[in-house]
Amino acid sequence: MARQRVVTLLTDFGRCDPYVAEMKGVILSICSDAALVDISHEIGAGDVVAGAFVLRQALPYFPPETVHCVVVDPGVGTERRILAARYADQTIVFPDNGVITLVERDQPLEALAVVRDERYFLQPGFSGTFHGRDIMAPVAAHLANGLAISRLGPRPERFQVLELPEPSQAEDGSVVGQVVYTDRFGNLISNVSVDLIRDSLGGLSGLEVGCGGRPVGPIRTAYAEVEPHQPLALINSMSLLEVAVNGGRACDDLGAGRDTEIRVARAAGRR
Amino acid sequence: MARQRVVTLLTDFGRCDPYVAEMKGVILSICSDAALVDISHEIGAGDVVAGAFVLRQALPYFPPETVHCVVVDPGVGTERRILAARYADQTIVFPDNGVITLVERDQPLEALAVVRDERYFLQPGFSGTFHGRDIMAPVAAHLANGLAISRLGPRPERFQVLELPEPSQAEDGSVVGQVVYTDRFGNLISNVSVDLIRDSLGGLSGLEVGCGGRPVGPIRTAYAEVEPHQPLALINSMSLLEVAVNGGRACDDLGAGRDTEIRVARAAGRR
Amino acid sequence: MARQRVVTLLTDFGRCDPYVAEMKGVILSICSDAALVDISHEIGAGDVVAGAFVLRQALPYFPPETVHCVVVDPGVGTERRILAARYADQTIVFPDNGVITLVERDQPLEALAVVRDERYFLQPGFSGTFHGRDIMAPVAAHLANGLAISRLGPRPERFQVLELPEPSQAEDGSVVGQVVYTDRFGNLISNVSVDLIRDSLGGLSGLEVGCGGRPVGPIRTAYAEVEPHQPLALINSMSLLEVAVNGGRACDDLGAGRDTEIRVARAAGRR
Repeated sequence: MARQRVVTLLTDFGRCDPYVAEMKGVILSICSDAALVDISHEIGAGDVVAGAFVLRQALPYFPPETVHCVVVDPGVGTERRILAARYADQTIVFPDNGVITLVERDQPLEALAVVRDERYFLQPGFSGTFHGRDIMAPVAAHLANGLAISRLGPRPERFQVLELPEPSQAEDGSVVGQVVYTDRFGNLISNVSVDLIRDSLGGLSGLEVGCGGRPVGPIRTAYAEVEPHQPLALINSMSLLEVAVNGGRACDDLGAGRDTEIRVARAAGRR
Repeated sequence: MARQRVVTLLTDFGRCDPYVAEMKGVILSICSDAALVDISHEIGAGDVVAGAFVLRQALPYFPPETVHCVVVDPGVGTERRILAARYADQTIVFPDNGVITLVERDQPLEALAVVRDERYFLQPGFSGTFHGRDIMAPVAAHLANGLAISRLGPRPERFQVLELPEPSQAEDGSVVGQVVYTDRFGNLISNVSVDLIRDSLGGLSGLEVGCGGRPVGPIRTAYAEVEPHQPLALINSMSLLEVAVNGGRACDDLGAGRDTEIRVARAAGRR
Repeated sequence: MARQRVVTLLTDFGRCDPYVAEMKGVILSICSDAALVDISHEIGAGDVVAGAFVLRQALPYFPPETVHCVVVDPGVGTERRILAARYADQTIVFPDNGVITLVERDQPLEALAVVRDERYFLQPGFSGTFHGRDIMAPVAAHLANGLAISRLGPRPERFQVLELPEPSQAEDGSVVGQVVYTDRFGNLISNVSVDLIRDSLGGLSGLEVGCGGRPVGPIRTAYAEVEPHQPLALINSMSLLEVAVNGGRACDDLGAGRDTEIRVARAAGRR
């Protein structure tokens, strides 16, 4: 049996309405053997930063030739362009609003085009309010069928990349970053990577983590290492520093969220 | 590779419980190469009108020979029948409670049968409370395998169609309709189609839209045409008049919902 | 066309975050023709009992050779083992925390292994916090590809089974059980099976059901048999006694939930 052509969807449409199903119907009408995978449809409405984060986390786990269709698109109907790009042997169709920022930061760009050739759009007519269904879904399906990105339109000279906060090193040597994403469990995921901690502080032991000024202890290796309802810090499955509460919701229990400061320092009394 | 047989599910079961998975297991046990697509499982419990709306919106985008299994069925276990119908080269299995109303209004009926032949039901025994799993899912799977609708049972003389509000034209020429669906973004979708506006008012420009008596301006072409948090009206991706709030939730901000009056009139001072 | 290899996912990850998609990407990278089915991702965070219940309900409806990947795993990163087991010609990969309890109770165990051979894990490196992606997903994919359970590791001498409340018969002959699961509709599902009622009370008629001490009438066959907003009892699609409210939410209307007592007795004045 031939390998399925994996096409993923990442949107802020929720799961109640017909919008996601309309896109899937369009894709299956063009690429009848597509294997559709929902990355998420629960991105906050118009939250391009969260979309960028989720896309960057999920992408490395998909097989080569996967096509990702990303519709977190608060500017739909305005002059913002739709782009198609190739990273890590996979293809992404997305609005030019910065949702590609974190993939672009972490993966080499292999190909890029403005989506312009209307032969690959849904016929007849193009809605001004649903480019996901009328442009991005059919283009993703044609790409899954093997269409080359270069057939879609010209390569743009530039595209939008968001200015996101970056972690830095304070004068006393501690690493200062920010919460960038809060997950379903209320875990606070920061932009401080394990590599940065190792490079800046010489390892993972003998450290003390603070979240919004509140100490949450050393870097641990499992949620269950602290008592229930106690906060902790650990390196999560994304190799990022995360602040959690064992059996609780760190965002609520610590009153923290996106942009809350996360600080990692050598514990007092240690070299 | 052969075309997959697309089988969709549209229910009010939510996604927490095992009900949807039980149906999918039944379908895959009978039609092992089914490509399952969730249209929605978040229809309000027993909300047949919302089910009818979502089904009608999604159906035209699916490929021919798709089988849709619709289980919004507050009367399960009573004498209401289960029907199978063919519209637009696709097949729908549904309870005879009016959930077919809007597809029936917009598409020609090609075939119809009462689902009666128990050879196509799940064996052994039929639950009185879960016809979705025990009757509709296996019947949908057999239809996906190529079973003709006429094999399921006789063609009924009539079936249930809901009396839904219809837009009308007031004496002053304005078009008066109603909100029929509120989506995840809080957008208020009306039953006023772009064709009706064009036929009644001669075009889309120079008009003024009201929502529950509150003016929301002319018909625009993109959410971003108004300032953030301001209301607007536009023709949406379903070719229906929609009232939205840019970056907000129209249903909350305007205190509106299903059956709220939507009025379209020539703007004062215009011909 | 060859039968697809069905791989299901049952987690408490929710649908917002990239976690489920990461697992699906891993599975499709190893087993490119997997047909992925979501059983649920809305199990309460760390609610092993609810996971056990949903798994047991869904499993019998899936085709032979289905592989189920169960990640309700509050102890991730601790010394709890990961197991693979075979029941009913299907395979389950799960943490050794009791989530298998109800399948084990109802189905004969056909094979069992500790998941230990790291050749089947995701390379490189194993996260301490996401065994679902790094161990369970790739192992499930290899099993879907035909790997024998015995290749994963040794058969353990024992594994964890939860002590769940069991229904009993009171001195007056009535059956006393508990609510074990509340579904999306607020229906209260008990551990009292139709067989137990028949064996203990001689049939289903002439009985009176109580929920938390409140009478809810005889055992009926459809929700619509009582007036709207009235409570009722019926044998549900799982062959279990369920207390519901027609058109309402029994859990809210009756102030009941998991462990609420459910009592079935002969109605007064009947033999």
